[in-house]
Amino acid sequence: MGFSPMARVSPETEASPLSSSQNSTVLRTLTDFVKADFAAVNAVLLQEMQSEIDLIPRLARHLIASGGKRVRPLLTLVAAKLCGYQGMQHVDLAACVEFIHTATLLHDDVVDESNMRRGQASANALWGNQASVLVGDFLFSRAFQLMVRVGNLETLGVLAKASATIAEGEVMQLMDNNNLEIVEQRYFDIVRAKTAALFEAACLVGGMIAKPDVSVSQALGAYGSAFGTCFQIIDDVLDYAADEQELGKSVGDDFREGKVTLPVIYAYHKGTADEKQFWERAFTQETLGKNDLAQAQAYLFKHKALEYARSKAAFFGKQAKAALDVFDESDLKAALLSLVDFSLGRRY
Amino acid sequence: MGFSPMARVSPETEASPLSSSQNSTVLRTLTDFVKADFAAVNAVLLQEMQSEIDLIPRLARHLIASGGKRVRPLLTLVAAKLCGYQGMQHVDLAACVEFIHTATLLHDDVVDESNMRRGQASANALWGNQASVLVGDFLFSRAFQLMVRVGNLETLGVLAKASATIAEGEVMQLMDNNNLEIVEQRYFDIVRAKTAALFEAACLVGGMIAKPDVSVSQALGAYGSAFGTCFQIIDDVLDYAADEQELGKSVGDDFREGKVTLPVIYAYHKGTADEKQFWERAFTQETLGKNDLAQAQAYLFKHKALEYARSKAAFFGKQAKAALDVFDESDLKAALLSLVDFSLGRRY
Repeated sequence: MGFSPMARVSPETEASPLSSSQNSTVLRTLTDFVKADFAAVNAVLLQEMQSEIDLIPRLARHLIASGGKRVRPLLTLVAAKLCGYQGMQHVDLAACVEFIHTATLLHDDVVDESNMRRGQASANALWGNQASVLVGDFLFSRAFQLMVRVGNLETLGVLAKASATIAEGEVMQLMDNNNLEIVEQRYFDIVRAKTAALFEAACLVGGMIAKPDVSVSQALGAYGSAFGTCFQIIDDVLDYAADEQELGKSVGDDFREGKVTLPVIYAYHKGTADEKQFWERAFTQETLGKNDLAQAQAYLFKHKALEYARSKAAFFGKQAKAALDVFDESDLKAALLSLVDFSLGRRY
Repeated sequence: MGFSPMARVSPETEASPLSSSQNSTVLRTLTDFVKADFAAVNAVLLQEMQSEIDLIPRLARHLIASGGKRVRPLLTLVAAKLCGYQGMQHVDLAACVEFIHTATLLHDDVVDESNMRRGQASANALWGNQASVLVGDFLFSRAFQLMVRVGNLETLGVLAKASATIAEGEVMQLMDNNNLEIVEQRYFDIVRAKTAALFEAACLVGGMIAKPDVSVSQALGAYGSAFGTCFQIIDDVLDYAADEQELGKSVGDDFREGKVTLPVIYAYHKGTADEKQFWERAFTQETLGKNDLAQAQAYLFKHKALEYARSKAAFFGKQAKAALDVFDESDLKAALLSLVDFSLGRRY
């Protein structure tokens, strides 16, 4: 075994289309297109997480101010702009999207018993599962209050449906924990529900409020869905391949939590009888041995499983780009296309 | 000490205005006024909890079909009828109210680590905390999808706000766990948020869709809020005084979970130094001694603390009744007034 936990970045990662610093540039360029709106979204988030119950903003701020990438609300703003939207509803809608995402993260960390999130101790590790469940509920409710302020029932329906779909995806994932027999299709069903649905909705509502042809909003939704799938696959790759400090959370979390992701599905099905036995033991025993993660990474490397997963991500990335064909060329469209490459190349 | 866990029904309970069988009659009478609508609500609940992910309806059905009292959706239906409402929106809205309530129960049981609910093993005890959190999120999202179907933004705003308030109330309660120094006012703030807000919203939206004078909807809201407070105080009394089988959950849960409720606040403040020491020990130590509940009940009995709490409940009950003064006399109004007595007299 040539792997140690300290050498977990496999050569495959080096093949990423963009380096980390280029990645940040892409995200910054995209943000610059909607700079004032993006600042407005942050202001809405900070204002709407307020409550007289001071634990709520304290806990919410821990997560929201810790600077996630804010990709989802950014998509709402950019989608609206791409459709020539002139009003201000997109700001509140983008904040709704981020609140729903934050609520999901809070509940996920409880479900996964995670201790790290965005390079910091997770909220549940600091304040307990109970507070995380309840503050998640609060933010979720606030999202819907904010949607009422927007006053657009159609977008409200899209976001309510996305929320239900996310919960379904999370339940699916929970049921399939430690199940090495799941097939790729099931993995993609889970990803579509738990991740792609909110990316899709984020883009869709941005388009809808601008009221272009339905086909245009749908194209944006298709971009969001494919991009979200691509994004999640890379997340699952990074869980085995990232630099821990850059990632902001522990490497190997999925492995420890028994989440059967695309690289594992692939390596398991390609594996020898001995390898299958290793995976089965690793995914059923209570605690992992100290070399198990390195062993898993070695098998993933042997079968080029991360490379395979990256190729699938690239496939969805291509779909995402194709969905934007309905739009004329523009700098904004070009930035959205680059975002796909950012996602494929990111290391965190 | 004249108390043993087997003799936990104190004589105070006997002073209830209505016996159990009379209670059921009151609830049945009220339900009969809106029989077809009530059946329609149940049908909507069963239909809308469906999902391709079969764990979701299985877990939801466990709670929803286990036959809670359905007081909250009943209030929505009755409020609408009292205002002469002729449409069908009240059915979906009532179902939304019950879904929000169910989602809250699922999350509460996770927060409280409860093992019993409505005379059965609680969902988290059967399927784990993770599934309970996620299915709660699903039902919550479904509630909002259903509200979109209703298409009334005003009622949507009321229910979204109530949901946020419930979460705030639960967080307050969590922060005050084991804190014997909290005063009555804080207790009532918590009750208003975690319980009364949804009763208020349930009544309010029933009135709002009928579009009577704003003052009429507000009167219904005031009824709901005062009734909900009364309802919660009795809940807190029953936690020390009920017959376990009738109650459908363990007696002494609040005590074990460190929830400082009105009877305890009262007895603690009235207590001798020795008694205060007992309460402090009971509310701070990890596990309770086998006689601690009986001892607590004895002190509550000594200071007539349950009687005191019942008198406060009666005060809010009176407020609830007074709120209905704006309505002409009718059988339906009489039934709503009796519901207050049911709540004061109930043993489960």
